[in-house]
Amino acid sequence: MKVNKKRALSLMLGLTMGLGATSSAFSQASLEDVMKARGLTQKDLLAAAKTYTPTGGRDEYLVFASGGQSGQIIVYGIPSMRILKYIGVFTPEPWQGYGYDDESKEVLKQGRIQGQDITFGDTHHPALTETDGDYNGKFLIINDKANPRLAVIDLHDFETKQIVVNPFFKSSHGGAFVTPNSEYVMEAAQYPAPFSSDFVPLSDFNDTYRGGVTYWKFNMEEGRIKPDESFTFELPPYSQDLSDAGKGPSYGWGFTNSFCSERYVGGIEKGRPPFEAGCSQKDTDFLHITNWKKAAELVAAGKVEKVNGSYMIPMAQAIKEELLYLVPEPKSPHGVDVNPAGNRIIIAGKLDSHAWVYSWEKIQKAIADKKFEGKDPYGIPIIALKDALHTQVAVGLGPLHNQYDSKECVVYTSAYVDSQITKWDYCEGKVLDQVHIHYNVGHLMSMEGDTVSPDGKYLVSLNKLAIDRFNPVGPLHPQNHQLIDISGEKMQLIYDMPLPLGEPHYAVAIKADKLKPAVRYKSGWNSRTDSRSIYRTRAGREKVEKVDGVTHVYGTVIRSHITPEIIEVEEGDTVSLHLTNLERAEDETHGFALYGQSVNLSIEPGKTASYTFTADKAGVYPYYCTEFCSALHLEMQGYLLVKPKGYKTKDDAIAEGEQYTKADFEKQVKTNLETQAVIDSVVAFITSHNYKDFPPVVALVEDATEQLGFAGEAKKKADDFAAKGDYQNATLWAGQWWQYQVKTADMGLRAKTYLEQHGAVKVDAK
Amino acid sequence: MKVNKKRALSLMLGLTMGLGATSSAFSQASLEDVMKARGLTQKDLLAAAKTYTPTGGRDEYLVFASGGQSGQIIVYGIPSMRILKYIGVFTPEPWQGYGYDDESKEVLKQGRIQGQDITFGDTHHPALTETDGDYNGKFLIINDKANPRLAVIDLHDFETKQIVVNPFFKSSHGGAFVTPNSEYVMEAAQYPAPFSSDFVPLSDFNDTYRGGVTYWKFNMEEGRIKPDESFTFELPPYSQDLSDAGKGPSYGWGFTNSFCSERYVGGIEKGRPPFEAGCSQKDTDFLHITNWKKAAELVAAGKVEKVNGSYMIPMAQAIKEELLYLVPEPKSPHGVDVNPAGNRIIIAGKLDSHAWVYSWEKIQKAIADKKFEGKDPYGIPIIALKDALHTQVAVGLGPLHNQYDSKECVVYTSAYVDSQITKWDYCEGKVLDQVHIHYNVGHLMSMEGDTVSPDGKYLVSLNKLAIDRFNPVGPLHPQNHQLIDISGEKMQLIYDMPLPLGEPHYAVAIKADKLKPAVRYKSGWNSRTDSRSIYRTRAGREKVEKVDGVTHVYGTVIRSHITPEIIEVEEGDTVSLHLTNLERAEDETHGFALYGQSVNLSIEPGKTASYTFTADKAGVYPYYCTEFCSALHLEMQGYLLVKPKGYKTKDDAIAEGEQYTKADFEKQVKTNLETQAVIDSVVAFITSHNYKDFPPVVALVEDATEQLGFAGEAKKKADDFAAKGDYQNATLWAGQWWQYQVKTADMGLRAKTYLEQHGAVKVDAK
Repeated sequence: MKVNKKRALSLMLGLTMGLGATSSAFSQASLEDVMKARGLTQKDLLAAAKTYTPTGGRDEYLVFASGGQSGQIIVYGIPSMRILKYIGVFTPEPWQGYGYDDESKEVLKQGRIQGQDITFGDTHHPALTETDGDYNGKFLIINDKANPRLAVIDLHDFETKQIVVNPFFKSSHGGAFVTPNSEYVMEAAQYPAPFSSDFVPLSDFNDTYRGGVTYWKFNMEEGRIKPDESFTFELPPYSQDLSDAGKGPSYGWGFTNSFCSERYVGGIEKGRPPFEAGCSQKDTDFLHITNWKKAAELVAAGKVEKVNGSYMIPMAQAIKEELLYLVPEPKSPHGVDVNPAGNRIIIAGKLDSHAWVYSWEKIQKAIADKKFEGKDPYGIPIIALKDALHTQVAVGLGPLHNQYDSKECVVYTSAYVDSQITKWDYCEGKVLDQVHIHYNVGHLMSMEGDTVSPDGKYLVSLNKLAIDRFNPVGPLHPQNHQLIDISGEKMQLIYDMPLPLGEPHYAVAIKADKLKPAVRYKSGWNSRTDSRSIYRTRAGREKVEKVDGVTHVYGTVIRSHITPEIIEVEEGDTVSLHLTNLERAEDETHGFALYGQSVNLSIEPGKTASYTFTADKAGVYPYYCTEFCSALHLEMQGYLLVKPKGYKTKDDAIAEGEQYTKADFEKQVKTNLETQAVIDSVVAFITSHNYKDFPPVVALVEDATEQLGFAGEAKKKADDFAAKGDYQNATLWAGQWWQYQVKTADMGLRAKTYLEQHGAVKVDAK
Repeated sequence: MKVNKKRALSLMLGLTMGLGATSSAFSQASLEDVMKARGLTQKDLLAAAKTYTPTGGRDEYLVFASGGQSGQIIVYGIPSMRILKYIGVFTPEPWQGYGYDDESKEVLKQGRIQGQDITFGDTHHPALTETDGDYNGKFLIINDKANPRLAVIDLHDFETKQIVVNPFFKSSHGGAFVTPNSEYVMEAAQYPAPFSSDFVPLSDFNDTYRGGVTYWKFNMEEGRIKPDESFTFELPPYSQDLSDAGKGPSYGWGFTNSFCSERYVGGIEKGRPPFEAGCSQKDTDFLHITNWKKAAELVAAGKVEKVNGSYMIPMAQAIKEELLYLVPEPKSPHGVDVNPAGNRIIIAGKLDSHAWVYSWEKIQKAIADKKFEGKDPYGIPIIALKDALHTQVAVGLGPLHNQYDSKECVVYTSAYVDSQITKWDYCEGKVLDQVHIHYNVGHLMSMEGDTVSPDGKYLVSLNKLAIDRFNPVGPLHPQNHQLIDISGEKMQLIYDMPLPLGEPHYAVAIKADKLKPAVRYKSGWNSRTDSRSIYRTRAGREKVEKVDGVTHVYGTVIRSHITPEIIEVEEGDTVSLHLTNLERAEDETHGFALYGQSVNLSIEPGKTASYTFTADKAGVYPYYCTEFCSALHLEMQGYLLVKPKGYKTKDDAIAEGEQYTKADFEKQVKTNLETQAVIDSVVAFITSHNYKDFPPVVALVEDATEQLGFAGEAKKKADDFAAKGDYQNATLWAGQWWQYQVKTADMGLRAKTYLEQHGAVKVDAK
């Protein structure tokens, strides 16, 4: 009844060659049938063609969206609008091992507030690092509004590397925004609070509560924020909001919005009107203009004092040194956006239906002429609106954020209340086009739209409410990002994309070919410190060592076993596991989970990941690989045995469930030789074609060759045991030899299929 | 320079009417241009038409996929392949407030192991509850492999409601699988371990380590698992794997695979061959056949003892009572899948290239005739393969899982090593078609494919490796789910979908119209216990109460304020916040975060969510709404003031930042009256059309009417203060009146746009 393995393998290869997906002829009629059945219009079909990305296709842009209350970053492609990755940033996430392995716990530990772990973040505004005002594809920085922090993500491996805590603020919505060479990252406070951690009554609000903007120094070579070289402007207790850095003629300056410049404090529970009423009384709020270049020089010259261990420029000093100015701006503003040329600044205020365009030339002139209309209660000079404004344009109700097109003078503004996008000319001050979105848009994102050279092409409307756009999934709805084609005169809505987790606030899109992510780490790599792990373990060097009362397990993982497979410790021991992934193959991640513990390690090729815990209860604790890595994945397992204190082993021989004979051994060897013949035929196919012209195939062949090498080692062990007449071990190692053959065949078949599907030609036919 | 609000609003309405998205004529030429530019073939275009879903369109099926090591459930639509939601199950997730609010912490607490919180899960196989073998759309159950647990998700609100811990197992991969009326949920052990929590040496492996399968009793009315009525079969220390419940003629029986029936224990660190070698030596493993119906009767009759506080049927009793049988199966199996008619069982073994089809008639006959080929080492009767097998079919290398088509006798099997799907006829035993996937498929999913009435239409290949399919995002790759059109003779691959977080193992697809999720909760609802929260707070009833040393804050949230806005406590106080969302509007979720704490609450309309903590350091702690809920969202804020112990307030008056006069009041009132005129015009537009024919518009009108009612209340307060000559408060309340007008306009404009875009007609024109 059973079929021998040889026949099975051969038969399968036959089937593979004979019955692969054939390309049948699709008639126009069947397209029409599908459109009719699905109720698609010609316009829908065009939108489908603009977004659909066939298997293996690449997206032109990658988007990094904040994940809002999820505390993560969301990565998706344009135009396919497929989400490629969630990156753990402020919130632990086990699939990535983030906050579960020792290495990433150290990153999260940097983000402690008042000594406490914070396991959540409210990410808002991601910023890509820039060189000369253009994205350089190296790092991403994102803020946490709830607990004012910034995090740095390395785009080499899409991992979070650093978290810094703001030394002054208790809330920070307006980060992160980089200067044109990523010299600094701007982070503004939001809800005013004392700069100290002390209690201060609200009766002292105007005197002691403060806002501010921090310029965090960024080192591009290290890819890290340098807190010791960063400085903060003390600002009035207005609620500072978003920022943008000047560029071109405005290089060296930063622009920061604010709302509630009324300095209103609510108290609805006591009959006072709520914050929302008092914070929106005045017709204008204040744009803060800060000179970071000159401030940095003062810091370098030792002229700025440290407070809370960090440089802080008091308002009086900033005024005296001519670093700080105010200009009236539309009320309750959100976006402040410097145009690519750096000479216009557009601000959208949610309670004013106009976008206001400021002229940097005018502002500069007013500053140079010291022409001010007065001072705010803190003595900061106020530039009159008429001395700063270029024009005002009615763009819709609840305007919120602006993004630039590649076409000169063209900008897009989101209108929250109107649920629409307005395309307008900010030079001439006229509306060009409008499109409805669904519903209530917050930020907008055009392709590289906040750089010195926007790409145009696409615009994404980051809507806050989905309501009826998708199949219902309970009271908590997904967000809805709508893709808009802006290549023509008229905007065209072409895709609705649900966001299944988190609420993105802002997003940035980068040309995909600027990113060069790695597919593996250097051998034994601590990916969080970007250095060789002190726990790196090489094949054959696995060991268990007790140092200073801690049992260190130096282990490895490779298809399909964890070394060691049995770990014995004593009740009460502190155990520190260190696992190095020995794989070289792309996408060959292994995982690790252990019964009774909150642990998942994600160990990508080359990485070393650790997990330290106390084995506080005697017992039997299975562990296993959590990534489906091979056909034998389920067998990639082991046992942690925690023995009672003082337990004396009587019999440590492992019980054998089955006994194998010479006949078993010979049967296995026969199978293996037949399998080898099949592998040889696959190898012959590959090498007879121009496989070296296909890099993915070259990688597969390398991997297959490595697996076949392992097969050879197992074969040797089998032969050695057989020579000694130990057919138990000989048979088992012959089995292991076959396992490596299966892994070789896996790679080989994938390579062969690839060649068949990608038009490889016979080498001699070339 | 400024434009008054009236003109702004009117102008905007004009723009809205005049410049909305126009439907331009798309020519065939432009479609061809797009196809050429994007390199799309006619076949690609057809695939695009089959999957592209225009704005507002609905998917035909909803998929619930396990999230693997993310510990979550992933919900996506077919054919659009858009992910709609991640549901927090075993891992805390802040966007949903899951594991962050008190109510959901109670759910996670149910899943503690040995008294410890487990903040991670390795979800594998989701199961939808069934009635008469068909999905009923009520509940979803999912397992955790790492720490053997099951969770119940209510499809009324897509929230996790219950977690149960297996009383015997230390590992459990093979869950969850429901019986045809969800009488029981099957969960099998994986890596053998002692049923006790004690240490047992590996020398006792064969005698004391055990496998098993638990039948968890499920109560459909309560939507909860009943641990007290559940029972477990003790099984040999083979590694049990997946299960399936019998149906039709096989109703009352359960089928459970196993691998490593060699009972091999590795130890590569000591020179022993690894688990993968020893666990795959034998040519066959064992299918376990258990009679749950008869076992349940024994339990009901009091004939089963409790162990670890739970019913457990020892092997000897199961054998004696004729509840347990074994049949050889292909080695290293994964899927065991009962066909819709319930008379065939297909098993795919990853190390055998054939799928084996068993005949339930033959198995039944062998059992009835007591015709066995022997017993296993534990005395369990083994039915001979020839007495159970219908046929064997060569389906590919590494066959893994089977899903049924709506067409009789048609089944699909995934082949891991070959990276292909084989469509075959299990009655005649012949291959019908094969298609390559990318790459290395694990499970398969057809539409309702494991029910008594599969729908066919689509098949999803749950691939384990993406490799080169998507833009690179670092060493950790997304998974790749490929959608295959199975409506015709030949399978057609039509979509590649990256999975950005987690590694789905199995997924189930249900016809979307079987689900009827809620859009809001009953007022003051504890969504985790499904009952009225004892902390429910109604509008105007907000209060702070100290009970048993705990300061309870009964608060509310509504656009755009949190009541209370100022909370004062003393250092060291335990504070318990309870926030009820007063909104009725769909999608009007509010959030809550507080500086210095790891908290985000997701408070959907009607929900009451709580957060309890110790205010252990005096200071100023801003809090705010984390969901962008309205134009005044940023102003939805407050302060927790933690006063030093014994602090005496000198002056508790809140500092006023601005003073308002009669003129300010009158200016605001003028604006409000002009705004009201605009609102009236929108109302006139809506009511002059057949808006009652559009349920979404009716909901918006209800919401707008409610907001306008609030505006009236604020107006009254403003008038009352003005009458008393208090223009400070009169102006502020007039501002609040205007805020409610803006919210009314928001709803009104959305309603108006909806009517315009959906062909509403004038009522008198009807």
